[in-house]
Amino acid sequence: MKRIRLTVAYDGTNYCGWQLQPNGLTIEEVLNRELSQLLGEEIQVVGASRTDSGVHALGNVAVFDTETRIPAEKISFAMNTRLPEDIRIIASEEVAPDFHPRHCNSVKTYEYRIWNHTFANPKERLYSKFCYYELNTERMQKAADYLIGTHDFASFCSSGSQATTTVRTITGLTVERDPEDPRIVLIRVRGTGFLYNMVRIIAGTLMEIGMGLRKTDDMKRILDACDRSQAGPTAEPQGLTLVKILFLDDDDDNDQRAD
Amino acid sequence: MKRIRLTVAYDGTNYCGWQLQPNGLTIEEVLNRELSQLLGEEIQVVGASRTDSGVHALGNVAVFDTETRIPAEKISFAMNTRLPEDIRIIASEEVAPDFHPRHCNSVKTYEYRIWNHTFANPKERLYSKFCYYELNTERMQKAADYLIGTHDFASFCSSGSQATTTVRTITGLTVERDPEDPRIVLIRVRGTGFLYNMVRIIAGTLMEIGMGLRKTDDMKRILDACDRSQAGPTAEPQGLTLVKILFLDDDDDNDQRAD
Repeated sequence: MKRIRLTVAYDGTNYCGWQLQPNGLTIEEVLNRELSQLLGEEIQVVGASRTDSGVHALGNVAVFDTETRIPAEKISFAMNTRLPEDIRIIASEEVAPDFHPRHCNSVKTYEYRIWNHTFANPKERLYSKFCYYELNTERMQKAADYLIGTHDFASFCSSGSQATTTVRTITGLTVERDPEDPRIVLIRVRGTGFLYNMVRIIAGTLMEIGMGLRKTDDMKRILDACDRSQAGPTAEPQGLTLVKILFLDDDDDNDQRAD
Repeated sequence: MKRIRLTVAYDGTNYCGWQLQPNGLTIEEVLNRELSQLLGEEIQVVGASRTDSGVHALGNVAVFDTETRIPAEKISFAMNTRLPEDIRIIASEEVAPDFHPRHCNSVKTYEYRIWNHTFANPKERLYSKFCYYELNTERMQKAADYLIGTHDFASFCSSGSQATTTVRTITGLTVERDPEDPRIVLIRVRGTGFLYNMVRIIAGTLMEIGMGLRKTDDMKRILDACDRSQAGPTAEPQGLTLVKILFLDDDDDNDQRAD
């Protein structure tokens, strides 16, 4: 028996999120089905991040146990010949038998993408939030700075969360226009853990500040309130991508894996 | 009676190209239908570029004649509330009654996008060509330089073309990696006119040179041969986007329109 870790990229458009559910196709379901067929045994993956319906990933992570004699590194290639084109295995490798993707120290990087222009761009509609009003990214960055560090993020957590604490640590949060195309605004967040919908609520609140509907230092007041109703709306899922997960206890540097 | 010019952006994924055809939905068909319903008269648009199935546009152009009293500038907004999300009207304006988008001097800009990495990226699959082998963009640029200027491009024209001459002028042709993400290779072509599949055959030939399957100066030999069988394959449609069309006889500078 060995434990295999997969790095998984997907276009979430046509899936009801990561986690198995009765009413629609999920990433987890497709991985379980194709791995079970490939390896000839019943496989159940455990995911690092149970992304929501419509959210994308370049480097989500899943682990599973198997008796297979196929070398771990070959599983990615074998799987990619079977999977639909909107799911790709970027890497597969053997890990320690006790490695659990949600119970170990990691840093996750998310990106929220906004198409900020007078007209929507058809090619961007599945991968960004369209915002007609011009966003002031300097104001957004000033507001974002209040969130960096360890705080109680209860204001940025949707109900339905099973978290025992709402304290989390954000280690990086930037708001920038793409230098190659200034109509694209990118919010990049890095942290050791995130609450349910946390990145999307942060994005929704930053957009209200960028449009001038709220003041920059409202962000501090919202954070201190520990009350979801004080923050802005949950930004739409299609703008969000889980870019990568860095496992801090890994022997080797796997920072390149999801790039 | 007045003549209206539309600047049209679309995601070509779900369409059988621009031009009306019996066997599938086209951009032209959707525009005719929605304009006719909006304006209450039978409208037939004339397009500047009849893009192929799966090809995208940020700034294709269509004109039509109408008796409407709706101000020309408002038609874009009215249309965008009716059109599916994968087609957007970026601008609408009145033009001279004799303006014809294919019979006047213009410069077209196309972009061909390649995702050049060991693994395919699910979010890029509808908007780029996946290339596993590392492309040498310096070799590609050297080969591309042979094509700049006025030449007989018969080697880069698919059969089925109705063109009376295969002489065309390319005014700019660059091959670069995206500085923000070097896994993306962008081929940008600018010219006063293009033959059927010309940009995609140029892209397919440049990719073979970038992979080392052909020498850089093969491009000159292929050009001189005036024989389609000498060039590389027609690169897949989803990598191609018609970025903009600049009409040289326009009174005002419309260079911004499709940006």
